[in-house]
Amino acid sequence: MNDRKISDSTVRRLSLYLNLLRELSAAGTQLVSSGDLAEGSGTTAAQVRKDLSRFGSFGKRGQGYRVSALRSRIERILCVNRTRRVAVVGAGKIGGALLGYRELRDRGFEIVCAFDVDPEKAGAEIFSVPVYPMGELETRLSSEGVDMVIIATPPAAAQEVADRVVAAGVEGILSFAGAKFELARPVAVRWMDVALELEGLSFLMSTSAPSERNGTPDEG
Amino acid sequence: MNDRKISDSTVRRLSLYLNLLRELSAAGTQLVSSGDLAEGSGTTAAQVRKDLSRFGSFGKRGQGYRVSALRSRIERILCVNRTRRVAVVGAGKIGGALLGYRELRDRGFEIVCAFDVDPEKAGAEIFSVPVYPMGELETRLSSEGVDMVIIATPPAAAQEVADRVVAAGVEGILSFAGAKFELARPVAVRWMDVALELEGLSFLMSTSAPSERNGTPDEG
Repeated sequence: MNDRKISDSTVRRLSLYLNLLRELSAAGTQLVSSGDLAEGSGTTAAQVRKDLSRFGSFGKRGQGYRVSALRSRIERILCVNRTRRVAVVGAGKIGGALLGYRELRDRGFEIVCAFDVDPEKAGAEIFSVPVYPMGELETRLSSEGVDMVIIATPPAAAQEVADRVVAAGVEGILSFAGAKFELARPVAVRWMDVALELEGLSFLMSTSAPSERNGTPDEG
Repeated sequence: MNDRKISDSTVRRLSLYLNLLRELSAAGTQLVSSGDLAEGSGTTAAQVRKDLSRFGSFGKRGQGYRVSALRSRIERILCVNRTRRVAVVGAGKIGGALLGYRELRDRGFEIVCAFDVDPEKAGAEIFSVPVYPMGELETRLSSEGVDMVIIATPPAAAQEVADRVVAAGVEGILSFAGAKFELARPVAVRWMDVALELEGLSFLMSTSAPSERNGTPDEG
């Protein structure tokens, strides 16, 4: 297996399988079929078998996959077998909402602190998460052992924040700030942009191929 | 040109080009090079030329692309040349934050109303957007001429909301509710899931190929 060849859409499907496996695990279910995994993640049983066969043989013919073993394996592949420590920069509407988003903790991501330029927010807590002033960014990222940063600032501030976060040694950034930024060294970056998703939706709605409309990735 | 063959990553890049073209347009810039478009959207000049050549010839050799013409063309391709009317179901932390997200309107998406099960929220306004009770979902989607719905409910409510929205004739759904849902007929669906993006980031951070880490799509 070569990690470098795992496509983005495969990683997304692994996340969807993991989500379902955790639910099954919580419900005490011991075995799951590729069909069940497929149904719960919007793909096909053949795709599930193809994805999982890349990481070794988990399935028992006619019985399905062992929930606990498969869950542990995918957690290791995605490196979410330990809690990741996350900081949010920009405690505005979107950033502030994320601070109270409990599902993140259930899925292994603990938001340990936030940062904001607004002096009224800095020093307070939002949903029990401490908000620090931007001047403390580097020292707090280090002292709090932050693994990943979510940038939820206005677009104009994103580049400077990204520069500081990367200089502070953080290896992963998830950005909600529409603007793209350049980085001084290669770190892992993902972008979330509601307007971009709506534009993609608008395009999908305009095409005449309804059977191809579902956005769930099925290949790769 | 066959719209059906345009990949998801191409559509995402078109959105990024459009974003930049709108900024250039607002600044009064008349021409833009493929290199500028590439730099502003995290891809290569060759990829920009390849993408745009699919939709006809816009570039003037040695001069670049005409900003206004290219902008109009991409708006038509993405079907965002008129304002799309959007409703948000679930006015909790994430849904409520979206109601105040001004950038959506700037990019052609007007959030015209929201729905919530909480009787204290229903009947009120959040960021000047009226919030209606769930019982009015079907009639309001129709009377407000809603094109697209953003589902921001807890996961357990997503399936029922999706069923009702689709039965009401809406053709596009953007879902923030982690849970997957099945639909009675094919409509356009996109999913946004912060935990899934963080898991993808975690995977990228764990791989040993830093040069391949940037999440911006470069192919397709």
